[in-house]
Amino acid sequence: MISITSIQQLFTPAFTVDIQKVKSNAKNMIERCQTLGVQLRPHMKTHKTLECADIMTGGSRRCIAVSTLAEARFYADNGFDDILYAYPLPLDKVGACAELAECLEMFHVLVDNEVAVTELKKRRLQVEKSWLVWLKLDCNNGRAGVQPEDTMALKLAKSIADSEGMELVGVYAHCGNSYEATNVKEIQAVAQETTRATLKFVEKLEKAGVRCPRSSIGSTPSCSHPVSNMGCLNEVHPGNYIFYDVQQLMIGSCQMDDIAVRVLTRVIGHYPHRNQLLIDCGWTGLSLHSLGKLPTGYALVEGHPELKLVGMTQEHGKIEPSSGKLDFEKFPLGSLLSLIPYHACATAAMHPVYYVHSDGRIITEWKPTRGW
Amino acid sequence: MISITSIQQLFTPAFTVDIQKVKSNAKNMIERCQTLGVQLRPHMKTHKTLECADIMTGGSRRCIAVSTLAEARFYADNGFDDILYAYPLPLDKVGACAELAECLEMFHVLVDNEVAVTELKKRRLQVEKSWLVWLKLDCNNGRAGVQPEDTMALKLAKSIADSEGMELVGVYAHCGNSYEATNVKEIQAVAQETTRATLKFVEKLEKAGVRCPRSSIGSTPSCSHPVSNMGCLNEVHPGNYIFYDVQQLMIGSCQMDDIAVRVLTRVIGHYPHRNQLLIDCGWTGLSLHSLGKLPTGYALVEGHPELKLVGMTQEHGKIEPSSGKLDFEKFPLGSLLSLIPYHACATAAMHPVYYVHSDGRIITEWKPTRGW
Repeated sequence: MISITSIQQLFTPAFTVDIQKVKSNAKNMIERCQTLGVQLRPHMKTHKTLECADIMTGGSRRCIAVSTLAEARFYADNGFDDILYAYPLPLDKVGACAELAECLEMFHVLVDNEVAVTELKKRRLQVEKSWLVWLKLDCNNGRAGVQPEDTMALKLAKSIADSEGMELVGVYAHCGNSYEATNVKEIQAVAQETTRATLKFVEKLEKAGVRCPRSSIGSTPSCSHPVSNMGCLNEVHPGNYIFYDVQQLMIGSCQMDDIAVRVLTRVIGHYPHRNQLLIDCGWTGLSLHSLGKLPTGYALVEGHPELKLVGMTQEHGKIEPSSGKLDFEKFPLGSLLSLIPYHACATAAMHPVYYVHSDGRIITEWKPTRGW
Repeated sequence: MISITSIQQLFTPAFTVDIQKVKSNAKNMIERCQTLGVQLRPHMKTHKTLECADIMTGGSRRCIAVSTLAEARFYADNGFDDILYAYPLPLDKVGACAELAECLEMFHVLVDNEVAVTELKKRRLQVEKSWLVWLKLDCNNGRAGVQPEDTMALKLAKSIADSEGMELVGVYAHCGNSYEATNVKEIQAVAQETTRATLKFVEKLEKAGVRCPRSSIGSTPSCSHPVSNMGCLNEVHPGNYIFYDVQQLMIGSCQMDDIAVRVLTRVIGHYPHRNQLLIDCGWTGLSLHSLGKLPTGYALVEGHPELKLVGMTQEHGKIEPSSGKLDFEKFPLGSLLSLIPYHACATAAMHPVYYVHSDGRIITEWKPTRGW
């Protein structure tokens, strides 16, 4: 086995992570939250690794959000605590959640319906613990959650707060609609609206005498450019910012220089008769997430704005110039190209190993958890 | 840990494989090839498991095609042999291929350019072995391969055959263009054309005195409905047929009853105000491969042609009726739905474990290899 020291020596396709950029993205978010006066509860769904979680929590290994039970167990098994399973409580997983709640200091679940509350009541925790429950709000995002202006929302909050063996810890909203923004102003309009709706509901709870100590909103766009009003919340829970990607760049969340991840690929074929070259990265290495709709196709080819990744099959990518004739001599067989992913969460999800480097020198490998 | 005996008890999302259908699909393909008089070299890219490979090879564990070096190593390490790395030889992997060629009885590589041949020459095999080389032909598919009518094709074949330490074993064409078909007649037109072009090139080789004992074409559509002319080839190399999927159903390759795989998912939310329910399967559990363009959205919901899977995020799917009001009582929170994937290769690629069942009773788990 040859010892590999440089990303240039990696078998391709390979998912690479620039540790300096990851650390810088983490630091900036931590400082931004400190300035704002809110607790950062970073979301793990983008990377699902222990090492990156350690960086995002500033080494505390406390106060994280996860999207799957598999992530919750992975982090719990590896010394993390204060874990919020930020997903509408799936009824098949109540027992598994109870086990986590019983062994961790703080394991939080999230609900948006009365049926889930009933199921939690049925499974009382042992060791004199209460279920730590968050109410999921849908502040105009249109996915999970109760709408805060719906009378059901207050009723459900009361039901949680009044149930024995259960504690209403907070309200939680995801401003996924910030992904429709195309600049900072639009991001901030969504952040403002989500914050306003969340705080208004918190006020309603206070007036009704329902104890609910925490409130949290999140999304990488909103937390990359927070509005001052967000300082009235207790927490935020962004995740993608640790890597960023072309989508975040287009939304206005980050600059090109902030994007920490790449897919390295090699040229495996020249086809002058159709003005195309083939690369050894297909959708198993990149995902289809841009749907090929970028001006440069499925991704950006770093340093080559003139190239377009026009097609992807399982293990092949087709590249052609946006216009004119391709100069094949510039891209010899075996030469490396670097793809900047459209959606880092989706691209990372395709890779069993992340190659972590500093200025191109490999310093370690990270292995994500997978499954549910 | 509760012992799980039925697929109904699985945590969702879960990828399930019906073993009876897999065995039946395998048997039908083996018999079809016997009738046709060609060797079946099944492709592993769809499932990447040992158990399924065993079934596809009728227990011989010989004569397979793979799409990645990781697959080649996985199968070689587990007693498989006669492995064709059916991918344009990546120059970074020549050394690793040499190691496989030196330890297996037969490890085949595939090339479509002179540079790869030169690299193979530079790395002579030890133990008095020759490189087993296939020439990749592009018979109107437009991905990898030399066009058989191009003068380069004959030149390259000669170059391989004439090189010391190298043997031209065969020519190989993938009729990926059969995926544009919408019925058996269109599939067969592509199969006919690919076969004709391949055999014509074999004839050209014979006339030029270039020894090339084997010829192979493949794709699940063409091999599910072979034309008689394919009997003049030596091999075929389909892969997806072991699972089939909605795409193959729409092409005309299979019947609904042949599709062996599902993604089980549960209802996690009711949202009457927008006439939608949420399921616990997002693109990490299904992939985005249909692009949502099916009349039923991203997949078929088994037994519910009236439902449409209209949206997918990382861990959430949104379902609504194709028309009218959703009857939420029919789909209580926690109830199971079964999704029939559009593209089985892409859906399988998202799962670290496949749950294998017979009539819903779980009999084993298969774990695929991943990476490159």
